[in-house]
Amino acid sequence: MAPDARLPPGSVIGILGGGQLGRMLSMAAAELGLATHIYAPPGDNPASDVARASTIADWSNEETLALFADSVDVITYEFENVPERTARFLAGRRPVRPGPDALAVAQDRLAEKTMATGLGLAVPRYFPVDSRADLDGAVARLGGPGILKTRRLGYDGKGQARIAGPEDAGAAWEATAGAPAILEELVSFDREISALVARGGDGSIEAFDVPENRHRAGILDTSTVPANVTPPVARRAVGIAEQIAVALDYVGILAVELFVVGDGDDARLLFNEMAPRVHNSGHWTTDACVVSQFEQHIRAVAGWPLVPPGRHSDVTMTNLIGADAEDWEVLSAESGAALHFYGKASIRGGRKMGHVNRLRMRTVIPPGA
Amino acid sequence: MAPDARLPPGSVIGILGGGQLGRMLSMAAAELGLATHIYAPPGDNPASDVARASTIADWSNEETLALFADSVDVITYEFENVPERTARFLAGRRPVRPGPDALAVAQDRLAEKTMATGLGLAVPRYFPVDSRADLDGAVARLGGPGILKTRRLGYDGKGQARIAGPEDAGAAWEATAGAPAILEELVSFDREISALVARGGDGSIEAFDVPENRHRAGILDTSTVPANVTPPVARRAVGIAEQIAVALDYVGILAVELFVVGDGDDARLLFNEMAPRVHNSGHWTTDACVVSQFEQHIRAVAGWPLVPPGRHSDVTMTNLIGADAEDWEVLSAESGAALHFYGKASIRGGRKMGHVNRLRMRTVIPPGA
Repeated sequence: MAPDARLPPGSVIGILGGGQLGRMLSMAAAELGLATHIYAPPGDNPASDVARASTIADWSNEETLALFADSVDVITYEFENVPERTARFLAGRRPVRPGPDALAVAQDRLAEKTMATGLGLAVPRYFPVDSRADLDGAVARLGGPGILKTRRLGYDGKGQARIAGPEDAGAAWEATAGAPAILEELVSFDREISALVARGGDGSIEAFDVPENRHRAGILDTSTVPANVTPPVARRAVGIAEQIAVALDYVGILAVELFVVGDGDDARLLFNEMAPRVHNSGHWTTDACVVSQFEQHIRAVAGWPLVPPGRHSDVTMTNLIGADAEDWEVLSAESGAALHFYGKASIRGGRKMGHVNRLRMRTVIPPGA
Repeated sequence: MAPDARLPPGSVIGILGGGQLGRMLSMAAAELGLATHIYAPPGDNPASDVARASTIADWSNEETLALFADSVDVITYEFENVPERTARFLAGRRPVRPGPDALAVAQDRLAEKTMATGLGLAVPRYFPVDSRADLDGAVARLGGPGILKTRRLGYDGKGQARIAGPEDAGAAWEATAGAPAILEELVSFDREISALVARGGDGSIEAFDVPENRHRAGILDTSTVPANVTPPVARRAVGIAEQIAVALDYVGILAVELFVVGDGDDARLLFNEMAPRVHNSGHWTTDACVVSQFEQHIRAVAGWPLVPPGRHSDVTMTNLIGADAEDWEVLSAESGAALHFYGKASIRGGRKMGHVNRLRMRTVIPPGA
């Protein structure tokens, strides 16, 4: 398919990964009359419950990957740990959006920070760590509290260890099992926000309003819109995500997590990390906007025009983690709350089981206020 | 399952019928963490694209029906022409909601009118017609324009013929092929509205706001909320649907189409027909409410609590019929419009291919106005 071709209704989107993001992408595609085919390794793949077809196989099975590619019109993914080799193999047969280059950058914290720095973005100070000697040197140079983060395969606080001073270096090195890592300055920030932008194959961009995110035990707890930042700061946040999307010639939803230091229009924004996919901090869009992040991603991937999200409500999204889902009877009786369960086979500690979007009437700021 | 039991997430809803209503019900169930199993005769069954399982077999295949029933926790249907015998067979094995009695009434225009009359509701004058002699007698007694409608299997204007006077009786009798029918007074109404109420197994009721419906060539064209009726008239419309739901000990979404004659609080409401299922005139609820008709139906069927719909926007739903769907590129570029395609295999004249919900900021009437 040509970069600017629009896939008509009836076309098939291949989705790599069978979790909740694939599930919500699959339903968004169905609403546009597009069918989906999930490719995922064996395991709990709730996306399959709402997809036309599913292929359950390993990421390295090239024979099966080729059959999958032949059966779809375009391919996207629901998580950034699809092996780069898999993405490149598929990209030789069908368009993969976002492209494998963006995926490769997002898979490596060092590449990500290097890219951000190269774009002139402010980032917390960081040091590459490939050995215990590197770590000791980095801790000394940092001269204050930091976090050791593995370069790859980290998510939801996994693969991370805090370091208050040199005395913690040994334990952190054990915790990350000596994997290639970066030591990052522990920033004292006032709040966390994320910028969610969609970019089409034609270069058009549509941004969602910026949510403010709170975490609990390293996992996203709530996202609230609007964030408690001034409009110029929100615009700068969106601008950062747009700048990255353009630099990566990106197609689809790009999420960029940012630290906010200070208040008012002068607040500083520090790049934390990016996700080359729909993002947990955008789950509120399903119920508070005319067009959700899932639909906007599918639109971009399928070559459809992007449209303004049309947010009609203020909203707080709250994740249901692990045992939170046991409260389903109470949650299901709540007014003004849109409940989403991911259809996972069993409740496990730390596992994302669902979320709830609590809507409020939108705050309209009168002109000139 | 006991009448008041709540099916936990992970349970399976059986859905009879594989069209767009089954498709939207299936996605609504998935959002609540409930899986679906579609049962439908061979044909184009787009609901299967978003269901965990599908059984494609005839309505009379009792061996297959039994296997289907054994594989689900509760059964509902997406259209009222499921044979009553099928519904009763299944009801012997699993709860069927709404129940077969409600289905039987809705399948027969005469039974439906008789029920409405029995409840004291105003209905257009009607006469049972089982023979050509009945028809001639009815035309004479009616003394004005009427519509001959088959008692069974009519929808979207099918199985109907207009009769201006005695000279049209022969053609109408041919058009309806002599099937058992009713001759109904052609009412000169000012507008058409529908009442959409959900009733839970515990007898609780939640109503949606009343849409105003316009038809084109016998098929619903648009539904607009709010309808151009006064609040007391809207409340009376909802009251009529509630009265029927209680009388039928109904569980699920019940749609009642009404003719409005006159304006202001004194407008008269005439019962036209009912549908024992989610209804095309409720498709706007997906994008203008926190809880859609599809979710509310699944909640009722699964024994979950009903919640207020939480309408946040005014809206006009426009059906995409037949060739309308060829405009998908133009429609997909429109702002503020939520687009829905049903994933049907091919465009055919008169076929419902999708719909679009165009949202407007909600009209809030200040207290005391």
